[in-house]
Order: sequence, then C-alpha cells, then structure tokens
Amino acid sequence: MIIGVLGPTGSYSEKAAEKWIAKQGDIKGVSLQYYDDIPDTVSAVLDKTIDLGIIPVENSLEGSVGITLDLLNENDLTIVGEMVVTIKHCLLSKGKLSDIKIILSHPQALAQCRQFLKKRFANAEIRTTGSTSHAAKLANEFEEMAAIASRESAQTYGLDVLIPDIQDRKENHTRFIVIKAGPSEKKPAEPGPLSSLPEKGSYKTSIIAYLKKDRPGALYELLGEFAKRNVNLTRIESRPSKRALGDYIFYIDFEGHTNDEVIKDALDNITSSVGMLKNLGSYPQYDLSGNAKE
Amino acid sequence: MIIGVLGPTGSYSEKAAEKWIAKQGDIKGVSLQYYDDIPDTVSAVLDKTIDLGIIPVENSLEGSVGITLDLLNENDLTIVGEMVVTIKHCLLSKGKLSDIKIILSHPQALAQCRQFLKKRFANAEIRTTGSTSHAAKLANEFEEMAAIASRESAQTYGLDVLIPDIQDRKENHTRFIVIKAGPSEKKPAEPGPLSSLPEKGSYKTSIIAYLKKDRPGALYELLGEFAKRNVNLTRIESRPSKRALGDYIFYIDFEGHTNDEVIKDALDNITSSVGMLKNLGSYPQYDLSGNAKE
Repeated sequence: MIIGVLGPTGSYSEKAAEKWIAKQGDIKGVSLQYYDDIPDTVSAVLDKTIDLGIIPVENSLEGSVGITLDLLNENDLTIVGEMVVTIKHCLLSKGKLSDIKIILSHPQALAQCRQFLKKRFANAEIRTTGSTSHAAKLANEFEEMAAIASRESAQTYGLDVLIPDIQDRKENHTRFIVIKAGPSEKKPAEPGPLSSLPEKGSYKTSIIAYLKKDRPGALYELLGEFAKRNVNLTRIESRPSKRALGDYIFYIDFEGHTNDEVIKDALDNITSSVGMLKNLGSYPQYDLSGNAKE
Repeated sequence: MIIGVLGPTGSYSEKAAEKWIAKQGDIKGVSLQYYDDIPDTVSAVLDKTIDLGIIPVENSLEGSVGITLDLLNENDLTIVGEMVVTIKHCLLSKGKLSDIKIILSHPQALAQCRQFLKKRFANAEIRTTGSTSHAAKLANEFEEMAAIASRESAQTYGLDVLIPDIQDRKENHTRFIVIKAGPSEKKPAEPGPLSSLPEKGSYKTSIIAYLKKDRPGALYELLGEFAKRNVNLTRIESRPSKRALGDYIFYIDFEGHTNDEVIKDALDNITSSVGMLKNLGSYPQYDLSGNAKE
C-alpha cells in the first residue's frame, strides 16, 4: 500500500499519515510517497499511482484549504478517514536572526504566522513553497533564508530553530483527510479500506451541495432535514461556484454514516430539492481529545 | 475626505475606490491614500488617519479574503458601501517570457492564477506581495521577474503585458467593502456618509454571529428567523473562531436595512439565542449588472 503526502520528508501531512497508520491495527507494507503540492497528490490518487492520499482540509487559525475543497468538488474522490495534527511552526535557518532577508513557507503557514511576520519581519521578502518541509529544504541553501516549518524539519535539513512557536495563537491544529479514488455517488459510501469500524454515531459524513438559484430559504430547508432528525452538523463551509460572484456551493460535514437509516432518509429528501448533491463518503470521526472515537 | 486603498497606484482596490467615488454625486476634495496591505489600511481607518478604507472581501474564484473577515470581527468597524470590480490579471515584465524565473503577486491573485502558474511556470520562484500593484512596481527591477497584476499597472510601472487574461476562469470579480471607524453595535447602522439613499429593499446588511456551543440546530434556527420573514440571504461564510478546531463564527449578508421593522424583528430574535451578534452595518447593495440598485 502506498500513501501519498506532501513532501519532502518532514511535512505536517507526513505526520498526519504516520498518526493515521499507527491507528490502523492490521496494516502491513505501507510506504509513503512524497508530492510537491496538493494537486499533485490528488492527481496521483486519481490515476491510482498511489492507494491513498493524505491532504490538509482546514486549519483552526486560517480556515479552509481552498484548493482541497475545489479538488473534492471537481474530481471523483471518496474520503475514508480524517486525522488532526497539532501545528507548532518554528522559524528555521542556517544563519543568524540578523541575517534573515527571505522567509519561505506554504501560504497557509505564512497566514498562520501573519502577525509574527508583520511585527518581526515587515521588510523580509516572502516566498511561497508547496509545503513547509520544502521551505526548510530550500532554506539550507543560504544563510539569509529562513523557513517556517516544524521543529523536526530543522533536524532533517540541518537548520537551527531561531524562534519556536511562532504561529499567531498557541492553539493551532490542522485537520487532514484521507482520500481514495472513486466516484462519490449517491450510493452509500464504503468505510475506508483500513478503518476499523467504530460504534454507530462515531462516523462523520461529508457532502457537497449546490442549491437551486433564486430559491430564498434553500439552505434553511437543507439544514432543516438534518435538524429535524437531530443530526449534528460539525461544519458548514461555502466556496464560490466559480460561475459568478454571489453563487456558492456548500461543504457540509455531519455526524452519522450514509448506511444509517436516518441519514439515508435525510439525504433522499435533500437530493430532491437541491441542484447537485455529492456524497464524499462516511469515515470514522476524529475526536479532538486525540483519538478516533472507537 | 481621505480614502485609504491598497497601494501603490494601480491596485484593484484603487479601481474600486474610483468606481465608488464616481457613484457618489456630491463628493468634493477626495484624495486617496495608499497602504502596503489590508491590516495597515484598516489600522489607518481605526485611528482616523483616513475617513474610509476600501478593501477586498471576496473573490468569485478564490472566495473570502480571510484577513478582511478577521479584521471585521476583531475591530469596531462599520461597512458603509460595497463595490464589485472585474479582475483581469496579466503577466507583466520588463523581460521576455523566456527570461522569467520569479513571479510576484498578492496571494489571492496567485491563487486565482493557480492553474496557469502550474502549467506554464511550474519551476518559477513565487514571491508574495501586499498588493498586485506592489508586485508590478518590484518587477521593474529585474528582467527575470514578472508580476501578476492589472493591464494598467504595466503602463504605470513600465512593464510589457507578456500574457493577458491569465486567471483560471474568464469571469473573475472581486467584491470590495467601504469601511469606516466606529462601533458596530446593535443600534441601527447609519447609511454611509456619502451614499445616496436607494429604495427600501436595495440595502444589504452584514452581521457576524457566534453560536452557542453544544446546541445542534443553532444555525438552522438562526437562518429560520430570516426564512420565515422572507429575508433573502446573499451570503453565509464560516471562519474559525481561532479558539479550537471545529469552532466557527458565521458571516451573514442579507437584503434589507436594520431600520426596516422586519429586519429589526429578526435580529432581536436572533440576539437572544446566539452567543454573540455583531452588526457590521447596512449599505446600498451593489448590483452585479454593474450599478448599485438605485
């Protein structure tokens, strides 16, 4: 089994993969494959070069990873798991603090350290990279470069931790999803190939809905199908449909499995009233206390 | 009157400001002040160095501008107007296409041209700037640099348009908001100082709501207060509360003015059931056909 993550080694998505693998009891012969960015990881999943991909979907400071949401909408993918990783960004460099003229990192990490950068490095040149670990690798080239990446990346790429814990708030977590190729049709999604089966109620399901236009209250009606069945929504996020300003699609996560009668019933009712409904799959819910609810 | 926009000259927010000023009939002695980034523009509004600020809030391809939403939540600001600008990004440089090794732009513009960059400049170094016009200004320094910015910026900064219309979809619009300092309390917001008064129903109101935790269906109930009064929601967006993963605040735009009885009534009912409700103000709604509804 090959799992694709953002590379090179030392990325937070590699951490997510290691945590996820450790939770699968019966897994053997797993290897990681590293990709330059999220679209490349997803492409490898889609053409079945790899079995699974693990990519970031939202962060507790900076919110959704737009490209991940877009790729879930544009391709036939199924979510088979999720994993949360605590993010502690550090400023890493070969040089001294006074040498730093250029700072490199992934756009999400840069945004999570926005106040730090503005306060301490207002005049530095900011370069974006496909991953934080790639930034750390590049920062090894010149003493005037620093990367925003994990502490582990310092060791891997021969850098010093100049300043630890530089994200704008101490609590910083990123949620990753585990994806596999395959249509996410209206039929009930299978649980992930490696997932142990938690109790009923500890699954989460993700859907994408595009509401019919010119129907005020359409979102209210959709949410009503969940509310009247006491289905707990864990997340609702809008993204531009990219057709026109003011036209959105909705990403909705809720507790339950598409095999549950109550969920089937809710989705059947929703299907008849929305313009498009895409089922992204049901998967074991990650408990923020640090473990999947099992 | 001084209006703050992203600078230097040539930015899309300068375009938004010019369009907005042209729509105000009785305006005299307006001057623009240019700022390095969105937080600096907002700071100048807050300390009353300037009367109004015009900043981007959402784009039809890449969605919300996270920093703008965060600043609206964290500060006492009132929205007094909105303006939509058509975005046509170009690749600008002093050099030839074959010279380009470095590409500069604002993170939102880079994201709007993501596919173009990946296809044509997979190995280029990507640098972020506070505005697209700042990227154009910097690109004047070296022939190996290109900026993603407006066609007008090419003229202003002595660059050639190497490739026009490079955003990932032809239709690309950004919505800007006009902000002034002041608390956005529950009292009815005043219309903007310069806004002519459109007919009832052509106003839009923006609020931020933080729902009480552990109340499934809270968002559904909130939307119900609008739905049962036939109030049309134009946008709903979630942002992390930054307290914990899975904890969100909601940004909601709807048609109507806080002086309308029906809106007052809806907001009164919502206030009693949510953890926090912030009124960002009522302002003339921009019609996508190109003019404010007047």
